[in-house]
Amino acid sequence: MVIVGGGFGGLYAAKALRHAPVRITLLDRKNHHLFQPLLYQVATAGLNPAEIAAPIRRVLRDQRNVRVLLAEVTGVDPKQRTVTSSAGTFGYDYLIVATGASHSYFGHEEWAAMAPGLKSLEDALEIRRRVLLAFEKAECCAPSQEERAAWLTFVIVGGGPTGVELAGTLAEVAHHTVANDFRVIDPTAARIVLVEGIDRVLPTYSALLSARAERQLQRLGVEVRTNARVTGIDAQGVQIGEERIAAKTVLWAAGVKASPLGQALGAPLDRAGRVKVSPDLSVPGHPEIFVIGDLAVLEQDGSPVPGLAPAAIQEARHTAKNIVRSIQGEERRPFRYLDKGTLATIGRNAAVADLGRLELSGFVAWLAWLLIHVFFLIGFRNRLLVLFDWAFSYLTYERSARLITGDGPKAAPAEPAPRR
Amino acid sequence: MVIVGGGFGGLYAAKALRHAPVRITLLDRKNHHLFQPLLYQVATAGLNPAEIAAPIRRVLRDQRNVRVLLAEVTGVDPKQRTVTSSAGTFGYDYLIVATGASHSYFGHEEWAAMAPGLKSLEDALEIRRRVLLAFEKAECCAPSQEERAAWLTFVIVGGGPTGVELAGTLAEVAHHTVANDFRVIDPTAARIVLVEGIDRVLPTYSALLSARAERQLQRLGVEVRTNARVTGIDAQGVQIGEERIAAKTVLWAAGVKASPLGQALGAPLDRAGRVKVSPDLSVPGHPEIFVIGDLAVLEQDGSPVPGLAPAAIQEARHTAKNIVRSIQGEERRPFRYLDKGTLATIGRNAAVADLGRLELSGFVAWLAWLLIHVFFLIGFRNRLLVLFDWAFSYLTYERSARLITGDGPKAAPAEPAPRR
Repeated sequence: MVIVGGGFGGLYAAKALRHAPVRITLLDRKNHHLFQPLLYQVATAGLNPAEIAAPIRRVLRDQRNVRVLLAEVTGVDPKQRTVTSSAGTFGYDYLIVATGASHSYFGHEEWAAMAPGLKSLEDALEIRRRVLLAFEKAECCAPSQEERAAWLTFVIVGGGPTGVELAGTLAEVAHHTVANDFRVIDPTAARIVLVEGIDRVLPTYSALLSARAERQLQRLGVEVRTNARVTGIDAQGVQIGEERIAAKTVLWAAGVKASPLGQALGAPLDRAGRVKVSPDLSVPGHPEIFVIGDLAVLEQDGSPVPGLAPAAIQEARHTAKNIVRSIQGEERRPFRYLDKGTLATIGRNAAVADLGRLELSGFVAWLAWLLIHVFFLIGFRNRLLVLFDWAFSYLTYERSARLITGDGPKAAPAEPAPRR
Repeated sequence: MVIVGGGFGGLYAAKALRHAPVRITLLDRKNHHLFQPLLYQVATAGLNPAEIAAPIRRVLRDQRNVRVLLAEVTGVDPKQRTVTSSAGTFGYDYLIVATGASHSYFGHEEWAAMAPGLKSLEDALEIRRRVLLAFEKAECCAPSQEERAAWLTFVIVGGGPTGVELAGTLAEVAHHTVANDFRVIDPTAARIVLVEGIDRVLPTYSALLSARAERQLQRLGVEVRTNARVTGIDAQGVQIGEERIAAKTVLWAAGVKASPLGQALGAPLDRAGRVKVSPDLSVPGHPEIFVIGDLAVLEQDGSPVPGLAPAAIQEARHTAKNIVRSIQGEERRPFRYLDKGTLATIGRNAAVADLGRLELSGFVAWLAWLLIHVFFLIGFRNRLLVLFDWAFSYLTYERSARLITGDGPKAAPAEPAPRR
């Protein structure tokens, strides 16, 4: 059988099949599993890439019924039961597709260059580069007060969990981490603006928790702009209807666009391109193909199963059991998502938690978030290192990975350089 | 005054001037100081970039007579006493140029794309990407036994310290770290070939230590080829005179080419472009300009001061004192390099050390190397983390940063993909 994708869905499906009588080929275009819930920490220079990523083949080293191949999957032929990839064509009897989702620019693909999103390690390093570079540019090279202010203005589009995390952490970076590192600029004067199209942040939480999250963001120094729809983004700033925010750094944390592989399956899709799966998570008409994780959409009790790591892991384990049942001639069981609660972090000592009947916010929610995320982080070594980095950051307000790598600053500016 | 470069020379000069009556502008095109002696550990996935790099402005945060600017210096005008850069033009009364050196391809610049060198964090990540990708390609996509062998052959050109470190560590990666991670290939069959043009590796050491280094390399599984001059490099391998080594991965660790900024000073240069400085490290005819570190060349007792971090640091401190002397109307003193001994690491438990009368090799030399390098690593936090990563690697043979980032594998291969 073939598993496409080494994220939470694909990796946990492979692990759950370790004692099953199957031979698994796991294909991913990256060599590493990424602990995406902490990706924003790499983007804000708090963690190193290797602390939230582990080589997939290392994780599955001792599971002899799996082979891992680094390959970009280009298509699926459900009739021939084959997967085509950069590493060749693979036949399958069972197929699990878990290639996830990315962000969507709502038809404005031209915004992508100005406002990078956060899905991969490369994305995170690009955001880190832009954020750190903005402070440097403000210090060295702003010819006017306006331009300096534009370099020190950071707009985050999208008030979901990623946008909230980025905004809260950027505020901490500006107002604490780099506060004393410059001579010309005052980083504590930096503006962090979080823009959300509807009337509250974290819309999947209760109105109460949304309000608390907004208050915590404001306490951290974030300007929260709800009911604000972005109508334009260019290299100099963001347009919100009539209003203009001059900003050199814009980050994108809105919209969902499913992996294009969903289309190849010939299954019904929703507007975001997600595959509408049967209750057993298989593709209608193709019981041998399962879609799990962010690429799948399944209604349950009137609302969709959320696109979160715990849901993907539950789906993976359920699918592994259903495959074993099918092999043994037993009947499959429908998937039931068990909501153990959701948490969103906002910043230092700030988070919200929805634990069913119990709603928490502030320090307690933040501590719960911290413990849970470190606990689930793959690999003992990574847990220890992340704890170390966090303790270090918490006590000192430092960020450990303040490196600008990749393309450096542009060579000579177009205008004649001022004499200093 | 102006300091160009935030490496060992520039950074330590700035630090040594902390109580001097000067106002310093330090310009560097990177935002971080790099602990270059450990760069090969990043290239071989043992350390994270942030563990061997620190933001320059963070290091100098509390030194109020320094401002740090991220800027690419494009020229120096010794007559006008100005430095031009991407961040503007800066006048100076004293100037320290410490922009270092890079590798040289001996006029074969076309080899650069095939055989990357190791000078920056970006270089290290590119080498890491290529090395890890080679194993993946051998596993997934080699249509023949020959091609698989070519993916599993790594040629390192240059038998100086960098080449020896890379070869020894790559042998450990192949023969231990990834030994059990693959299903098709046997990584322990990988060939690591170290090619050196003259008759021994580590030619700046004694013949005895060179011989011991070669023996230690062989014990680690490295093929050492001395008296072997590379005459061609292409995407399929390396030409050594009549002989051809089929290899998909070639790393460059030979040659020295000084930073081009040396030319702008109008000073006499040696063949590698290094500035021939006066005994006080100033440029002949320009006592207000100092050149230190790898960009400078100075004969002493018949041999040049070596291009090593300790030499750069000694030069930096000496220059700081001479500047203070000049300001106070005192006479400058000539620089004397104090050789406290040199060490080169080879791999696990393997190194050589030249401590003047005492020559060490093997485990003792390796331990000395380890302690000294961790001790000199900038920042308490980095020391602790590097120690942790090394202890982890030493005990488990794991490497903590096995990430392939950047450009992924090519999409579809040109030839029709085989059915698997």
